Amino acid sequence: MADLTFKISAHSASPAKTVVKARNFQIIVDEPADLGGSNEGPNPVEYVLASLAGCLNVMGHVVAGEMGFELRGVKIDISGDLNPARLFGKSFDERAGYKNIEVKMTPDCDADKATLEKWIEVVDNRCPVSDNISNTTPVQIKLA
Amino acid sequence: MADLTFKISAHSASPAKTVVKARNFQIIVDEPADLGGSNEGPNPVEYVLASLAGCLNVMGHVVAGEMGFELRGVKIDISGDLNPARLFGKSFDERAGYKNIEVKMTPDCDADKATLEKWIEVVDNRCPVSDNISNTTPVQIKLA
Repeated sequence: MADLTFKISAHSASPAKTVVKARNFQIIVDEPADLGGSNEGPNPVEYVLASLAGCLNVMGHVVAGEMGFELRGVKIDISGDLNPARLFGKSFDERAGYKNIEVKMTPDCDADKATLEKWIEVVDNRCPVSDNISNTTPVQIKLA
Repeated sequence: MADLTFKISAHSASPAKTVVKARNFQIIVDEPADLGGSNEGPNPVEYVLASLAGCLNVMGHVVAGEMGFELRGVKIDISGDLNPARLFGKSFDERAGYKNIEVKMTPDCDADKATLEKWIEVVDNRCPVSDNISNTTPVQIKLA
């Protein structure tokens, strides 16, 4: 299959608020007041978790279909811990981003536990967002 | 500094559409029609790029302030390539997610090129989302 290219274009509405255009959609990214923003939208690291949830939903349905069971729906809860010390320049002992991300999937279906354990393994292996978080991906940042 | 925990809760509105709750915000994730969705929102991998843009804006302003130049604003364009073969189960030769992500930053400021090259290096080093994409992060997926 041919590669797909995805693009966004963004500008700062303030030091904490970013207006992002993805095709015909607008995404507002902001920070809560205690992180210096105007709290007009989820913050960047919350969007990372939302991306993962969206991808796991799609992959969950694709893989359930392949495995031959009906997935009537799925609930996905995700949490992650990060230490803001590097972000604020207070300490460089810890990494900047999430140290770990935990996902709880609650599928609405009649499959047995062994089938669902296999389902999760395949979903994780083929989910683009899970791959980009779990593994290394080159990010090249250049000045225009 | 103490760790911060971020959380989202999501449910499938359809096999391609996910409704995500992050604090008091709702995020709609969907796929375009050609990827099997109802095109009611950006897709998961577009949100990954939006997260990165939002994080680079915040960090860009934090670091400019530390370096002593005025950043009046910044434009951020991001693109990434991925091959959908693994996602669709057609081939396992390539990874599932983005193979590379390219970011073009257009800062509105009077700093010289050497200062801005240093600025980008520090921003990249301290940006949580850039860290989570560039480096490995454990993602634990469990059944509820």
